[in-house]
Amino acid sequence: MAQDLGAGARQAPARPGKAFYCVGPFEPELGGYIPEIELACETWGELNSAGDNAVLIVHALTGDSHAAGKPSEEYKRGGWWDPMVGPGRPIDTDRYFVICSNVLGGCSGSTGPASLDPDSERPYGMRFPLVTIRDMVRAQRRLLETLGVSRLALVIGGSIGGQQALEWAVEFPGFAEKVAPIAATGALGPQGLGMSEIGRRAIMADPNWQGGDYYGTGRSPDEGLAIARMAGMMTYQSAQGQWERFGRRPATRPALCPEFGGRFDIESYLHYQGRDLVGRFDANSYLYLSRAMDLYDVAAGYESEEEAYSRIESEMLFVGISSDWLFPASEVRETAEKARSAGAEAHYTEIDSLNGHDSFLKDWAELQRALKPFLD
Amino acid sequence: MAQDLGAGARQAPARPGKAFYCVGPFEPELGGYIPEIELACETWGELNSAGDNAVLIVHALTGDSHAAGKPSEEYKRGGWWDPMVGPGRPIDTDRYFVICSNVLGGCSGSTGPASLDPDSERPYGMRFPLVTIRDMVRAQRRLLETLGVSRLALVIGGSIGGQQALEWAVEFPGFAEKVAPIAATGALGPQGLGMSEIGRRAIMADPNWQGGDYYGTGRSPDEGLAIARMAGMMTYQSAQGQWERFGRRPATRPALCPEFGGRFDIESYLHYQGRDLVGRFDANSYLYLSRAMDLYDVAAGYESEEEAYSRIESEMLFVGISSDWLFPASEVRETAEKARSAGAEAHYTEIDSLNGHDSFLKDWAELQRALKPFLD
Repeated sequence: MAQDLGAGARQAPARPGKAFYCVGPFEPELGGYIPEIELACETWGELNSAGDNAVLIVHALTGDSHAAGKPSEEYKRGGWWDPMVGPGRPIDTDRYFVICSNVLGGCSGSTGPASLDPDSERPYGMRFPLVTIRDMVRAQRRLLETLGVSRLALVIGGSIGGQQALEWAVEFPGFAEKVAPIAATGALGPQGLGMSEIGRRAIMADPNWQGGDYYGTGRSPDEGLAIARMAGMMTYQSAQGQWERFGRRPATRPALCPEFGGRFDIESYLHYQGRDLVGRFDANSYLYLSRAMDLYDVAAGYESEEEAYSRIESEMLFVGISSDWLFPASEVRETAEKARSAGAEAHYTEIDSLNGHDSFLKDWAELQRALKPFLD
Repeated sequence: MAQDLGAGARQAPARPGKAFYCVGPFEPELGGYIPEIELACETWGELNSAGDNAVLIVHALTGDSHAAGKPSEEYKRGGWWDPMVGPGRPIDTDRYFVICSNVLGGCSGSTGPASLDPDSERPYGMRFPLVTIRDMVRAQRRLLETLGVSRLALVIGGSIGGQQALEWAVEFPGFAEKVAPIAATGALGPQGLGMSEIGRRAIMADPNWQGGDYYGTGRSPDEGLAIARMAGMMTYQSAQGQWERFGRRPATRPALCPEFGGRFDIESYLHYQGRDLVGRFDANSYLYLSRAMDLYDVAAGYESEEEAYSRIESEMLFVGISSDWLFPASEVRETAEKARSAGAEAHYTEIDSLNGHDSFLKDWAELQRALKPFLD
């Protein structure tokens, strides 16, 4: 599969594909200790000799390191940001060394709750320490050192990836020349927090969750995870977009759940999205990552929000999505204004779309248009 | 407790309190048969000799017949619409004979899935037939006949109660002089359908649900119902209202659920709302009533929406709530416009509130102001 280059390896992977890097022991900011972190990572393009032409792409909640690539056996839909990444594309792999790594706490190759705890020799489960957006960014920094990156030309990502992008600018001032948080703010609002908790309750109420120790039992909290995904999907779309896409039309997909007075298309869609995630995502990772998203507060550890934003040295582009209700455009705009008031060179642009929060994974032309002036 | 006057009793209850009326066998519009329907009902004021000074109040999803009354042992919060109903209040019990009945399919005294099926002598569970908004209204009509009501001065209700009010105007043209649907439209949108299905999936995925046959087993789908309630509560509030009320503040209430990285106030609030419903509501009723809400389409059985609205003879007041995202104000306004285009005397007014859909159960002064010109 992919090689483990071990801690201290200072070289880019020799060939395309997922690689795994051990980046040492880790102390999460809220407590606990992880004896060894491994991060899964993919790269595209070549790192220059100065090590400063690197772009870090940060994935969304249930994403992974496979940002770019055509559809394949393993990745039927191809890379999740493929139209944005490649030769001549907005993130141009002829110019940049592009890196995407699975986040700390994830389940697509990086150390997370499904990983073996070397002390107990069983999976961490809920004994995995809480990890924060800042922890994810600090782990990414170690990975970049391992890869020989001295400076980033750009950090970019949406949603929880946008939170990490913002944290990059605050935690490591000036390490990245440019930073573009998309559909993200310095702190998630209560409506997002509430929807997030509904998902976690569904997972934790599933008896197959078994307090998080479901690994190897032959049972896993699939129903709970599917419901969590359904709740998540609601926050990723807009009311008007759903009217256009689903309306009140009956389902056309085959049934996955018992019928109760028929089945609307939106229900069937949610059932499929729920099942789809079950096959590819670990329920405990869902708990940890959604919690990290909730807990993120850019001001944490500083005297004030202003102090946090005043640290920024990167040129920033905040991108809002007009119909987003997880991170409303008005709040993204306000975040840009706060950063600017604190002295940062912060721009704001907005994508006008009915696709809601998910727009940054769909509206390629609009996204390219929004990013082009900033990237060029 | 309360008297059962039996079918055909043509008299108002002798004293305040809940009464139960058998209104005969029933054939739900989507199929099935209920050998006998009983409806729980409360009344206030006196029916005049012409039987035409009656007001029908229709309750919301988890409401009941106790619309008015001071806090008591049984109803700690008093009647759910008490500020609106009483001597000298907007719905004046000195002038009107006011009726509120628990809906068909409910669990507060009226026949529903928790009732005994006389054929099998066990609770219906999921063998209870699907009931629709129209069925609820038809059952209410029978109750009114039993009570000796010849004509309604007003039908009024919010949310699923507003759907029933609208259906009253369409199904029985002219029986009510005035009809006021609040925070309701002719058909729920896909975002509402999706949230509704998340709740039902949580109930049905709870192993204690047991296919709906949990009665008498000592186990009931409390976790699932609590999650369904959490999802419901999200749709009853607005993002901005939640920022003001909860923000990102930590919880002050004692814990009901295991802690995971702290607990935000909004989470704790949702946990309490979830538990509160578990003590007072039947999970199967939640399934049936939420489904009725989803399935309601004012045009069902007619050639077009326009034909449905053209039947209306009552004077209508549609009330939207500015921050409602279950039944957005824009859609309520549009419903009023459709009714007007079809020839109905239909007014629209809007309550400007951050309380979201729930506004009609909270913003008494605004509600009174919105209704007064119509009621007088």
